[in-house]
Amino acid sequence: MKNAVYAQSGGVTSVINASAYGTLVAALESKEIDRVFAGINGVKGILNEDLYDLTEEARSEIDRIPYTPGAVFGSCRTKIDSDEDFEKLFKVFDAHSIRYFFYNGGNDSMDTAHKISKKAKEIGYELQVVGIPKTVDNDLLETDHCPGYGSAARFTAISIMEATRDLKSMYSDSTKVFIMESMGRNSGWLAASGSLASTDRFHGPQIILLPEVPFMEDSFIAKVEEVVKKEGYCSIVASEALKRPDGSFISTAGYYDSFGNVQLGKIGQYLEKIIRDALKCKVHVALPDYLQRSSRHVASLIDWQEAVEVGALAVREAIRGESEVMISINRLRSKPYLKEYTTVALELIANGTKDLPVEFISEDGFYVTDEFRSYALPLIQGEAPNLYLNGLPMYENLQKIRARKLL
Amino acid sequence: MKNAVYAQSGGVTSVINASAYGTLVAALESKEIDRVFAGINGVKGILNEDLYDLTEEARSEIDRIPYTPGAVFGSCRTKIDSDEDFEKLFKVFDAHSIRYFFYNGGNDSMDTAHKISKKAKEIGYELQVVGIPKTVDNDLLETDHCPGYGSAARFTAISIMEATRDLKSMYSDSTKVFIMESMGRNSGWLAASGSLASTDRFHGPQIILLPEVPFMEDSFIAKVEEVVKKEGYCSIVASEALKRPDGSFISTAGYYDSFGNVQLGKIGQYLEKIIRDALKCKVHVALPDYLQRSSRHVASLIDWQEAVEVGALAVREAIRGESEVMISINRLRSKPYLKEYTTVALELIANGTKDLPVEFISEDGFYVTDEFRSYALPLIQGEAPNLYLNGLPMYENLQKIRARKLL
Repeated sequence: MKNAVYAQSGGVTSVINASAYGTLVAALESKEIDRVFAGINGVKGILNEDLYDLTEEARSEIDRIPYTPGAVFGSCRTKIDSDEDFEKLFKVFDAHSIRYFFYNGGNDSMDTAHKISKKAKEIGYELQVVGIPKTVDNDLLETDHCPGYGSAARFTAISIMEATRDLKSMYSDSTKVFIMESMGRNSGWLAASGSLASTDRFHGPQIILLPEVPFMEDSFIAKVEEVVKKEGYCSIVASEALKRPDGSFISTAGYYDSFGNVQLGKIGQYLEKIIRDALKCKVHVALPDYLQRSSRHVASLIDWQEAVEVGALAVREAIRGESEVMISINRLRSKPYLKEYTTVALELIANGTKDLPVEFISEDGFYVTDEFRSYALPLIQGEAPNLYLNGLPMYENLQKIRARKLL
Repeated sequence: MKNAVYAQSGGVTSVINASAYGTLVAALESKEIDRVFAGINGVKGILNEDLYDLTEEARSEIDRIPYTPGAVFGSCRTKIDSDEDFEKLFKVFDAHSIRYFFYNGGNDSMDTAHKISKKAKEIGYELQVVGIPKTVDNDLLETDHCPGYGSAARFTAISIMEATRDLKSMYSDSTKVFIMESMGRNSGWLAASGSLASTDRFHGPQIILLPEVPFMEDSFIAKVEEVVKKEGYCSIVASEALKRPDGSFISTAGYYDSFGNVQLGKIGQYLEKIIRDALKCKVHVALPDYLQRSSRHVASLIDWQEAVEVGALAVREAIRGESEVMISINRLRSKPYLKEYTTVALELIANGTKDLPVEFISEDGFYVTDEFRSYALPLIQGEAPNLYLNGLPMYENLQKIRARKLL
């Protein structure tokens, strides 16, 4: 008896469930794998023997998974660290005859997967460990891009395109500056994707603020003023993780409430204030927050397909005997887009992150280069299909049969 | 020579350009109307003789207008008040032989249209004035609903549906409360539409905060605590216009910056703080802002169609001799949906607004009733088509030929 377990980890993307679907279908249809489990709330579920058994689940409901945002089995931010944790984990693996572990997450999760794999070797437990990449931040090493990024980038580009049209309609006697805050805790990949909204036919946003570029208030204000003077309005995408020249985050500075407590500032609000103070004009701020990473309705077809495929490929590679690797995407051409999948050792990915390279950032630091746009454009192509009923998307409604606890 | 002018006014919606399209096509194809102009930035453009002449515009570009968010000719918040303004306005009307005035806006705009019509009668200037309704706030009197509302409601419902799935994935060891701020300066129609995200198959959001219900901090916190205790997480849609029991806005209270200046608080941030203080849990806040009213990519088909039709009907009614009226939508049935268009005197609409009626608000004040959901559901049906190229929507690219100034 050789069983498999799949688990989701870290912040969700709008296509992490597409990877779940790819993994589950490939595992369920494989002759080498008997039962297929999913950890409830990531590796934490495995640790506590909280598992769903997907082997008996209706296939028609499994087919709904890739249309569903969020993490269908729950996610977690738990790290496996202590000897006690490892002992518990391998007891669960052993009790449920788990010989395949598929972990779908970002670099922290790849680190966890790596540690589990090393531990398995150390104690002589036969286990194939394959990581499935996922992050809207697009900052994993050793892969051209990460599933989840293309869809969040498409949301970002379309949203700022629409909002800039709104701003352009109103600036003549109302709001002159619009700021959209973007996720991306360590890197500017997602904020940069706002640049895709600028086409031959339409110009906007005019400024993109990246965490890779130290934020200087004076030159920023001068830039906004210049754009407003020239075009009448200024549309901005700002990374939540902007830093001062000394490397400290701006968004932890911020505000005091009426009781004098420090308030964790939002970057959009901070920028709104300095622009309003300096230029005396009306400013609007949007903070999409979860909408940016979970807007499944506007997911990119390419991203959605790749998310399914890396899931399925993880199973095939594990069955072929590959382990302690993550599925990676290797781009061969951008136009027309051509990529291949490869595997890369987990230890090369664990705990590192990839900043936006300098050749993707414009000389003045307030925008991206055409090179970046050529990089990102293939990833937002096409519309991932939605199942609509009554004007609303239909999501999975799995039975979620619990695996019987054996410990 | 009998010419027509169309102008857009107030905050935009994602389908105001669908009404522009309906009006322009009907006017361009009518034998009774010679040239068709559009005011640049609303009535302000007419006042300053800043007009586009659409008569020579390529029809293929006009056909792109309804796919475009924002106000394609620019909007304004200008009121026509002084005798001097009226004199200027009628000089422009006269110089350009304008005998039809179509004004696309909310209640302020209907007030402006009403005043212009009365003035025309007073000075004996032959002018047909027809208002075309538009507002995401859905608060116009004398119409079942307003074009623009259905699409903003669909964005709101789908976004909170997606974000609640995100929250549900993460709450086990991270964020337990998610708040999405909603537009709606005077009424809770738009915030209420978040309730459409709750289907038979999925429950969320669990709380909707409406400006019609005085906000009481203690009972709100108790409600959030109860929901988190029962379901593990709490998803909230909050109107930007929440009021204290004394009728004052909460969102003007707010914060002090590091210089001691009062900060205009955002309601989401205020709620985040009181929840975090009381329940000591992680809270996320989204503020869609312009994204909520301009998300053309997720517009409702019903709303989009109705927006086109009220535009076209305004022209037909004006030609039939109707004036000083607004096109209104009269619902006959909700399920299946059936409506008819009528006209209603501008003076009945000007300056009044319609709150969410009490039968649409749940007894405890933290949600809406099934009656509201039956009212709103028909308005978000179907997906308005998008023109996509390279994964991004294609918008109009009108030549925007200026009418020659005659004054």
